[in-house]
Amino acid sequence: MNSFGNIFRVSIFGESHGKSIGIIIDGVPAGIDFSELDMEDDIRRRMPGEKGTTARSESDLPEIISGVYNGKTTGAPVTIIFRNDNTVSKDYERFKSVPRPGHADFTAMKKYNGFNDNRGGGHFSGRITLPVVAAGVLAKKILNGVDISSRIVEIGGREDYQSIIDEAMRTGDSVGGIVEVKLSGLPIGLGEPFFNSCESSISHIIFSVPAVKGIEFGSGFASARMKGSEHNDRIISGSGKTASNNSGGINGGITNGNDLVFRVAVKPTPSIRLTQETINIDTGEMVDLSIEGRHDYCIALRTPVIFEACAAIAMADLYLSLGEKNEPQ
Amino acid sequence: MNSFGNIFRVSIFGESHGKSIGIIIDGVPAGIDFSELDMEDDIRRRMPGEKGTTARSESDLPEIISGVYNGKTTGAPVTIIFRNDNTVSKDYERFKSVPRPGHADFTAMKKYNGFNDNRGGGHFSGRITLPVVAAGVLAKKILNGVDISSRIVEIGGREDYQSIIDEAMRTGDSVGGIVEVKLSGLPIGLGEPFFNSCESSISHIIFSVPAVKGIEFGSGFASARMKGSEHNDRIISGSGKTASNNSGGINGGITNGNDLVFRVAVKPTPSIRLTQETINIDTGEMVDLSIEGRHDYCIALRTPVIFEACAAIAMADLYLSLGEKNEPQ
Amino acid sequence: MNSFGNIFRVSIFGESHGKSIGIIIDGVPAGIDFSELDMEDDIRRRMPGEKGTTARSESDLPEIISGVYNGKTTGAPVTIIFRNDNTVSKDYERFKSVPRPGHADFTAMKKYNGFNDNRGGGHFSGRITLPVVAAGVLAKKILNGVDISSRIVEIGGREDYQSIIDEAMRTGDSVGGIVEVKLSGLPIGLGEPFFNSCESSISHIIFSVPAVKGIEFGSGFASARMKGSEHNDRIISGSGKTASNNSGGINGGITNGNDLVFRVAVKPTPSIRLTQETINIDTGEMVDLSIEGRHDYCIALRTPVIFEACAAIAMADLYLSLGEKNEPQ
Amino acid sequence: MNSFGNIFRVSIFGESHGKSIGIIIDGVPAGIDFSELDMEDDIRRRMPGEKGTTARSESDLPEIISGVYNGKTTGAPVTIIFRNDNTVSKDYERFKSVPRPGHADFTAMKKYNGFNDNRGGGHFSGRITLPVVAAGVLAKKILNGVDISSRIVEIGGREDYQSIIDEAMRTGDSVGGIVEVKLSGLPIGLGEPFFNSCESSISHIIFSVPAVKGIEFGSGFASARMKGSEHNDRIISGSGKTASNNSGGINGGITNGNDLVFRVAVKPTPSIRLTQETINIDTGEMVDLSIEGRHDYCIALRTPVIFEACAAIAMADLYLSLGEKNEPQ
Repeated sequence: MNSFGNIFRVSIFGESHGKSIGIIIDGVPAGIDFSELDMEDDIRRRMPGEKGTTARSESDLPEIISGVYNGKTTGAPVTIIFRNDNTVSKDYERFKSVPRPGHADFTAMKKYNGFNDNRGGGHFSGRITLPVVAAGVLAKKILNGVDISSRIVEIGGREDYQSIIDEAMRTGDSVGGIVEVKLSGLPIGLGEPFFNSCESSISHIIFSVPAVKGIEFGSGFASARMKGSEHNDRIISGSGKTASNNSGGINGGITNGNDLVFRVAVKPTPSIRLTQETINIDTGEMVDLSIEGRHDYCIALRTPVIFEACAAIAMADLYLSLGEKNEPQ
Repeated sequence: MNSFGNIFRVSIFGESHGKSIGIIIDGVPAGIDFSELDMEDDIRRRMPGEKGTTARSESDLPEIISGVYNGKTTGAPVTIIFRNDNTVSKDYERFKSVPRPGHADFTAMKKYNGFNDNRGGGHFSGRITLPVVAAGVLAKKILNGVDISSRIVEIGGREDYQSIIDEAMRTGDSVGGIVEVKLSGLPIGLGEPFFNSCESSISHIIFSVPAVKGIEFGSGFASARMKGSEHNDRIISGSGKTASNNSGGINGGITNGNDLVFRVAVKPTPSIRLTQETINIDTGEMVDLSIEGRHDYCIALRTPVIFEACAAIAMADLYLSLGEKNEPQ
Repeated sequence: MNSFGNIFRVSIFGESHGKSIGIIIDGVPAGIDFSELDMEDDIRRRMPGEKGTTARSESDLPEIISGVYNGKTTGAPVTIIFRNDNTVSKDYERFKSVPRPGHADFTAMKKYNGFNDNRGGGHFSGRITLPVVAAGVLAKKILNGVDISSRIVEIGGREDYQSIIDEAMRTGDSVGGIVEVKLSGLPIGLGEPFFNSCESSISHIIFSVPAVKGIEFGSGFASARMKGSEHNDRIISGSGKTASNNSGGINGGITNGNDLVFRVAVKPTPSIRLTQETINIDTGEMVDLSIEGRHDYCIALRTPVIFEACAAIAMADLYLSLGEKNEPQ
Repeated sequence: MNSFGNIFRVSIFGESHGKSIGIIIDGVPAGIDFSELDMEDDIRRRMPGEKGTTARSESDLPEIISGVYNGKTTGAPVTIIFRNDNTVSKDYERFKSVPRPGHADFTAMKKYNGFNDNRGGGHFSGRITLPVVAAGVLAKKILNGVDISSRIVEIGGREDYQSIIDEAMRTGDSVGGIVEVKLSGLPIGLGEPFFNSCESSISHIIFSVPAVKGIEFGSGFASARMKGSEHNDRIISGSGKTASNNSGGINGGITNGNDLVFRVAVKPTPSIRLTQETINIDTGEMVDLSIEGRHDYCIALRTPVIFEACAAIAMADLYLSLGEKNEPQ
């Protein structure tokens, strides 16, 4: 249930304020150069720092505890853990009675009958995306020659968004955004016709990330307003290159050699300083709630590298499931 | 790769113009009333007939060949097949050299080195959604007490869409649309925190359906333009009922007891009568292509019952994975 | 639950006296020659006929209904079905009240609360091994260059067993036996270190076959009485060839290039003409039971080709999971 | 590949002389009392100490790093790690050129092209069974009311085996053995008819354990020499109790309410002080090899608790896959 992938398989664990969070990465080919240093850049990209992100300094040092020997992957499962510290846990117990709107407090409490560790969001915390980013670094190495990039498309509905974030910070509110991810150089033929289409696999892992509300590939929702004659991508070379890219690089669930492109909608951070109303489920009374502490005013700003990692993990899995042995004979 | 689900597991097979298409449904509890008649309504809803859908009469009679005895499921895998007939296969071989824009002709030919059966789209055909609808009927029975409904939100960008379809029919073009699905009455607690969130599971199977370009839950892409104070759903009763439903009935990947709502973007049918340009990949020459025959002018019109089935299958799987034994002790 | 394999994945369905039994084979590479005729030999080897096997003529004609086009696999799932006929179902309903010793009557009735189709053993019937043999034919083709053979080691404790079978036929009793399977020419490196060792994978599928009570690899149970100095296989060439083969061709779960050898213990057929005592679970009274009809006196005689198929399926799955992409870089 | 189970799913990682070994246990119900202390007894039972086992003191202190909060499981994945220390790694690099007979040196080197960490056996080490024992403790708690026990049946062919071990120690040789495991009190109905029979599931995980050469259920290999009239277990009560237990508590792959009994053959430890011949695969020359250091003279002595853990894990998985929702309706 906490795993993803068939060949390149990741399994996550950990709670935000527990001892550690981490990930096992199974199915990694032997002989890939890999060390803690390789993860530095992508982990830093996920870190807070930009205006609008939380000021909490997180303990984001990865430790590889298995699967790497003499600086190279061994073929055995690679495990990476992150110690948790700098955590302030005193606030959370009350959220089991007074669930925060937009959070998993209520559903987690119901599902686990109150036994869940809800400190800092527990296993539901956005912090769990940190080991996903770490695994993404390895996935990117497997997708040798593939260029993966991402960008903020808009925040609060605007491409030019700095003032919107300023306003959210000032008012104690938060804002959402849209992120685009692009993979260039993928081989033709990745993905399966039906249940394991590229879109199925990528959307599956993208919707694992907290705060994601939508995903679209290529023309996406705009396609619903187009005509077939506009939407069909004209094939202009024997290599499959198309004049437009409404398909987002995928036909019939399978990569077509053009850029694979998707966009993700990220909701505004649910933790806000502004007073909200919610219910005390023990007493049945409505109560006012103002969430203090260090929070992201716009979590979308930190997600591009996370979505890159997700895409890399999904595509590395599809990539490794192909080999000369299962190619046509 | 052609399977979906952990407990309630469906496996599809078949090609559009082969002998049969069908589905195995594993993990069905014993003792459920089930017969071919039960599938009649949903299969009819998927049939062409409405203006804008293909005039081709398909052979849509289901035959249950295993897993049902004396009118009840036995606990063994339920297999349903549909014989193919009324097929005209003469046109298809040339599409391996002259791939149709917007279709899987090119990617399938590359992936399977030309060995794929491309008659009528083969295993990539929209016809493969027929057994999915059949399995959906059983899934709906498992989700006893859950009301599943769907509706066309818009076609070609308009809620009032009949004239748009008329125009597409007249000009030999096609149009896309948006479909909304709603599940009312789901128990609280279905879905898993990260990799098997409700959204992950539903989007995985929805993106299996040909022509889907996007999916959004609750507020979806609109959430990216909202503030946290607007977006957070105020909890107004101890049962978790919320005043608004931007969450789409899911928090932290887990059902919260409110309506589970999602919308799907469906692209315009790629088969159009209008002349398109494509490449002959054998000769490298550009050629004009007009796709004759009976096609849907708006495939979105036939998808609501398919998306219902997908949602039912995904949620039945999550539902059956919960039991008194894995509930908190 | 009714599936086996990760890459080369088989899913069975059907009941002995239902409409059809069959199998979906997913993950088959495109371009393999395959037709109904290819299955003829192995299916005939499973047929009754030899002294000691049932006189019931079974309907063993395979029909490929998907995944093959122009005589070659397409890369889409291959589905093979067998129609059931020549079935006499009148006897079976009473076995839900009066369970036959050694059969699944009691456990199936309890597990499925009486809803199971128990005619001819239903989904528990040995007939379900017929599609497994069919899938084995395709698996053997994938394991190109691997020689798979099997032999009866002993029946009723004797290598020379004809008189033992005569006696069982005369007295209305049955006998068990031991079967050995050998795979020569497997590449080095198939199998995984721990949970997916070759032995794990093979034993998993072998124990699916009804009537199997034990399995051993190489020296097997005899190893428990050996010393390390006797048991260790001396490596005598750089290709890994060993002087003895106590390992059965596997070290650390991984093929070592020597013959992979295992033996399977098959119990005596539980259906016997001799009067047995059992309980009527409705009344609580002990009753005498004599099982009439056509039964195998020694089911072990029909199993060698089944175990070959199982081994081929398990090893084809491990074989296809290796490719140049997941080999060391 | 390094995972086992569908609902109760364990994933192992680590190398013998790496930083840590460990296990993620997914699918654990919330609310189970669990702490490091609970694992003490079973871990101690696996420890060396008895005559014939290695004198190397291992670092066997478990650390729970996720999934437990306030002394109870949270419903999120439980992760347990063991730090490695007291390791002497200097000897191992040469085994890539001079593979030890009976070990995985040769196959691992070939499979991973020499990139595997072979210090202390690396990921192939018997040490990897330590986290399996830890997970077994949790599995046993889930199987509340089930009594799991195990015993040495014979060592070196003798029930009275102390002198045989003395001789092995004196001569620098090693001996094998047979271990029996019994589970009493399992509910009726666990296991699936074909591919996920109880025997399939148990044998799959048992053959993960290094040095296992065979497994048999109930009458096992002896059944091959029995007649049906002897072998069939007479049902003597409406609860399914049988007069004998040749079935080993399983019919048709499903528990029948009697004791589930199986026996495992364990080969003699391949590491022996006695001089053996092997090949230097770099030079092609035969060389003499005497393996010094601290080794078990009879690894079978340490396996009973490991096999208990394996059985508990397999049966907990089957147990949790049943619930009121998938029971007959």
